[in-house]
Amino acid sequence: MAAQLPAKLKPAARVAGQRQDVWSIVNEAAAASPVQPIVNMGQGFFGYNPPDFIINAAKSALNRVDCNQYSPTKGRPRLKKAISDAYAPLWGRKLDPETEITITTGANEGMLSAFMAFIEPGDEVIIFEPFFDQYISNIEMPGGKIVYVPLSPPKDGSTRTSSAAEWTVDFEKLEKAITPKTKMIVINTPHNPVGKVFSKDELQRIGDLCVKNEIIILSDEVYDRLYYVPFTRIATLSPEIENLTLTVGSAGKNFYATGWRVGWLMGPPHLIQYVSAAHTRICYSSVSPLQEACAVGKFDVSNLSRPEFIHGA
Amino acid sequence: MAAQLPAKLKPAARVAGQRQDVWSIVNEAAAASPVQPIVNMGQGFFGYNPPDFIINAAKSALNRVDCNQYSPTKGRPRLKKAISDAYAPLWGRKLDPETEITITTGANEGMLSAFMAFIEPGDEVIIFEPFFDQYISNIEMPGGKIVYVPLSPPKDGSTRTSSAAEWTVDFEKLEKAITPKTKMIVINTPHNPVGKVFSKDELQRIGDLCVKNEIIILSDEVYDRLYYVPFTRIATLSPEIENLTLTVGSAGKNFYATGWRVGWLMGPPHLIQYVSAAHTRICYSSVSPLQEACAVGKFDVSNLSRPEFIHGA
Ligand SMILES: Cc1ncc(COP(=O)(O)O)c(C=O)c1O
Ligand SMILES: Cc1ncc(COP(=O)(O)O)c(C=O)c1O
Repeated sequence: MAAQLPAKLKPAARVAGQRQDVWSIVNEAAAASPVQPIVNMGQGFFGYNPPDFIINAAKSALNRVDCNQYSPTKGRPRLKKAISDAYAPLWGRKLDPETEITITTGANEGMLSAFMAFIEPGDEVIIFEPFFDQYISNIEMPGGKIVYVPLSPPKDGSTRTSSAAEWTVDFEKLEKAITPKTKMIVINTPHNPVGKVFSKDELQRIGDLCVKNEIIILSDEVYDRLYYVPFTRIATLSPEIENLTLTVGSAGKNFYATGWRVGWLMGPPHLIQYVSAAHTRICYSSVSPLQEACAVGKFDVSNLSRPEFIHGA
Repeated sequence: MAAQLPAKLKPAARVAGQRQDVWSIVNEAAAASPVQPIVNMGQGFFGYNPPDFIINAAKSALNRVDCNQYSPTKGRPRLKKAISDAYAPLWGRKLDPETEITITTGANEGMLSAFMAFIEPGDEVIIFEPFFDQYISNIEMPGGKIVYVPLSPPKDGSTRTSSAAEWTVDFEKLEKAITPKTKMIVINTPHNPVGKVFSKDELQRIGDLCVKNEIIILSDEVYDRLYYVPFTRIATLSPEIENLTLTVGSAGKNFYATGWRVGWLMGPPHLIQYVSAAHTRICYSSVSPLQEACAVGKFDVSNLSRPEFIHGA
């Protein structure tokens, strides 16, 4: 068999650079470290199972014909209702399951759907550095240009133990990064890899800048239920900010089931409808029995933060 | 709350046209037909469950920590080995699970990954008409241009009952459709919606044209195990054709579990590596416990075509 591809058939630029992903790099570095065991701050996954009631819900779903066939492209009604109920106390109102919530194949494909929905080649997307590696390809797939704004560690961070909260947003650099081509900004709170939870004041300033400059805010909050005290969600700061904000969640992180590939986006109908349209064109629909299991899970925070769930079943 | 999106934030062209999907159209037409019940030839899903041994395999997988966390981006080794074993008698050799098989989130995201891997804006993709609706958005996402070539029904097809095999490829039109920008062609056999199984002679002629003109063949064979006699697979016709061919499979169709979102592509390493790269950038990895269940299923044709599986458990 000819071992090669004719020159005419070269791969598209978006996949041609076969760079090693950051987790392989981090894992290799961690393994090679002279200090062992070492805390690997890369990708978040779990060394234990989801709680039993979620596993059992998945098993029951597998017995049901409708839970093994295609789900509606926007997600199973029961899951969207569960998400609406779970977030109501945090939002101060119920999001409409039909128009303000859409289910995706993990948070990752959810974020890709958001970029595919709004980014045309050459549009700019601001992300804070350091950042979750996968954002790069998600933004580059639809032809977006990434603009980096640093999060700065405390000046003496290398000589004393400091809190993640001490990392600061450089607002001067953020304002300078905004151009007429800036279409979206990504916020990640609680933050991977730094662990920083953005303060209300920081989010208000970022939100105000986005309202002033008409920028869509993609707020990656997948670690929301692994942070055990209330924190500010940018979508809840004002109607004008909410109007521009897509909030990202992940059942994988909420239920210690990163391999289930269930995520969601929440936001106003004029944003969500296009995210749904992109998701339909990417994955068609998401995994049915595990969506149903997550619906049963109900994202009950009090349940999920019980220590036996945190430390494994 | 402001009910509108600022003009600056309009959605990307790839999602802006909110056309009704073909299944909604077909379902509405079928419901309105004066002849009832009617056979709806649109999207394929099942009114019964996967066989018990597959369901049970999924339930066992849910008990295992590693089956609930991220899988390798290219798929679980056990599933790739099961696919290699299952297809060996049909290919006349074992495909290498590491380099010639990659797991995707359903056949649909698998085909999108293939187009994302090879199509640059303006590249042309030939599809036969009629076709499975989702191809359009899959090709348009990376900026591909679709070129249609008709499959022709028998001339007297409207006045007598004819076989799907009587639909023919118009080779003159196919040759005319090929340009220097033609990068891929999609074949679908067994065909949705026509039901046609392409003959060996037809596939040989298409394959030869692709070798001559250096065109990647994407062969959508998701209905392979719902067709109960052997049929020709274009990848097996010659080493030169295999060298250019990606074959698509779907556990959803094989195991009557369309909601599981497990699919795969098979082909030479110089094609598969870029499909894997695109899949990693789209979904990161695919659903873990259901991949494992499919591995246990082993795609045993003799098992799966037993009538109790065909007609439901
Ligand atoms: C910040 C952040 N966002 C998104 C994701 C992806 O989540 P999911 O597994 O739901 O796709 C991760 C996974 O590590 C993450 O760390
Ligand atoms: C011809 C064809 N290809 C691909 C698919 C998608 O398969 P999957 O559910 O594995 O994404 C379908 C689904 O109806 C189909 O009919």
